[in-house]
Amino acid sequence: MTAVVPEEWSVTPRIYVENVRGREAAYEVTAEAVLRHLHSACRPAELTCCFSDERDLDALRRADILIAGRLDTAVIASEGRHLKLIQCTSAGVEKYFPFDWLRPTTALTNASGVHAAKVSEFGLMAALMLHEGVPEIATNQRRHAWNRQLRGLIAGRRVLIYGVGALGGAVAERLQLAGFCVTGVRRNGRPHAAVERMATPDGFRAELPQTDLLILACPLTPETRGLVGVREMAALPRGAGLINIARAGVIDHVALASSLKSGHLSGAILDVFDQEPLPSDDPLWDVPNLMVFPHVSADAPDGYVDRCLEILAENLERARSGQPFRNRVNPLLGY
Amino acid sequence: MTAVVPEEWSVTPRIYVENVRGREAAYEVTAEAVLRHLHSACRPAELTCCFSDERDLDALRRADILIAGRLDTAVIASEGRHLKLIQCTSAGVEKYFPFDWLRPTTALTNASGVHAAKVSEFGLMAALMLHEGVPEIATNQRRHAWNRQLRGLIAGRRVLIYGVGALGGAVAERLQLAGFCVTGVRRNGRPHAAVERMATPDGFRAELPQTDLLILACPLTPETRGLVGVREMAALPRGAGLINIARAGVIDHVALASSLKSGHLSGAILDVFDQEPLPSDDPLWDVPNLMVFPHVSADAPDGYVDRCLEILAENLERARSGQPFRNRVNPLLGY
Repeated sequence: MTAVVPEEWSVTPRIYVENVRGREAAYEVTAEAVLRHLHSACRPAELTCCFSDERDLDALRRADILIAGRLDTAVIASEGRHLKLIQCTSAGVEKYFPFDWLRPTTALTNASGVHAAKVSEFGLMAALMLHEGVPEIATNQRRHAWNRQLRGLIAGRRVLIYGVGALGGAVAERLQLAGFCVTGVRRNGRPHAAVERMATPDGFRAELPQTDLLILACPLTPETRGLVGVREMAALPRGAGLINIARAGVIDHVALASSLKSGHLSGAILDVFDQEPLPSDDPLWDVPNLMVFPHVSADAPDGYVDRCLEILAENLERARSGQPFRNRVNPLLGY
Repeated sequence: MTAVVPEEWSVTPRIYVENVRGREAAYEVTAEAVLRHLHSACRPAELTCCFSDERDLDALRRADILIAGRLDTAVIASEGRHLKLIQCTSAGVEKYFPFDWLRPTTALTNASGVHAAKVSEFGLMAALMLHEGVPEIATNQRRHAWNRQLRGLIAGRRVLIYGVGALGGAVAERLQLAGFCVTGVRRNGRPHAAVERMATPDGFRAELPQTDLLILACPLTPETRGLVGVREMAALPRGAGLINIARAGVIDHVALASSLKSGHLSGAILDVFDQEPLPSDDPLWDVPNLMVFPHVSADAPDGYVDRCLEILAENLERARSGQPFRNRVNPLLGY
């Protein structure tokens, strides 16, 4: 992935920021934050900050850089003809696939890595909870049932993380430190310091029978959609647990509910759903030994915008020195 | 605390083991385990292993050492006249208070420390859960409510641990490693490597307003009974959480339920109850933002008996060399 030709980059770019109306204030990219983070990388000739429901299309047409929480791909395709760089402030960009709206002259970068610290803490908590049987204990509590079952120590419990990128890698580090034995799957198969054995997606199924806890931390792409279904759950040993902090589309929820009801899987923690908020009549709410989390695993409000703008500042420096961008989305892979 | 006069100690003691009928097999102290652990410390002249419902009173009358899961204090008072050492295989001995049944010539040792590894893992999990608002999320799930509330990172979250002994100290180590800022309270006020600031019980109330999460890990004694009531909960800041891995009598449950219902405390995790199993009609089951755990925080079946017998083996060596016993219960303090 090479950078856009450095000559084209101006140290006085036109920047257009579009915030999502109604989102928590901690996620608003303010003009003050942009200037503070980019002051050593550039001096914007123009800086427009607005919400998506009060667009300044003229400013967008002139802009070199777009910073946005959600991408209105039709508007970008028609109006963003000068854009050299789009910094998306979310990490997952699967909803913009396929990337036929993206000009070849525009680099799209995501916020991958911004979530690492938070997700590593959530992932550790979720792994400890499944080890301790908390989804089952919470289900028992609903029917006032005690059912004491002692769990051993963590040492040697086998975790398989699918997707050892910014998220999965950060989780792996915490889990290894806590005493779990971590195996990983990632597309390039490259080793990771916190992962004892790294497989490629081809080897995923073969790892399942030796897995006490499966953690999904991959992007949703055509390759990972429906990754874990009836067969994969059956391949996990009886009593295994499952955590999904990736995207809902990675799992077959009907198969998951059935596996939990049968007692084959002992518990699951889901933080992502096809529709969010999860509708109140969704059957997932009442599946035994399943805990529904309201998409909180990766977002820590403190410093979120700062971490996004640090990526952008670094990439502006990189563009100037002709280095490839950090976090550039590969339109073919979808992340 | 000095040891029993070493001269009186035989390298060929009579040992009597009484197991609790119906307890998990992992907790049974077998003759094989006793011989394996004590082989370098002594060669028993007699070794009787039985369950409490099939006592061999003659053997108990002759015994120098009693190993027992539960102490029948009346029987010990009347029949255990030669006992020099009682190794109780539970850590808490509050139910045998006052210790008027214990001869001054008999040392009572408990299993304190046996639980350290397990409880440190449970304590970390529970702290992460309260930080993330899991009791509230579980309560929301019961009524199919999403209610997304983002939590920040752990760094700097203030935990106060009451009771920094074997249990509380092990929890403190894990929490400090995870990024929590740990304050402690213990009777002797001695510092602990994982605790930033150590107070004595006198200073407990003054610490509460600076506490995000209060963890109770003390023995139940006349001093700690009713430690946390209406006033103490009110002194915690709004949104604080509470974990009890000590004994139920340390907390006023009515005050806790009321504080949780009012929203002053944001969540609680209880692992100990006045009556266990918690009766199915107990109102605690349905208190909002309260999670009921079936007394699992400290018991890891793997190696439990081994760890108890290691204490005994060490104490036999200590008796021989005139050193004070490890884990000897002080009848006046009650632990």
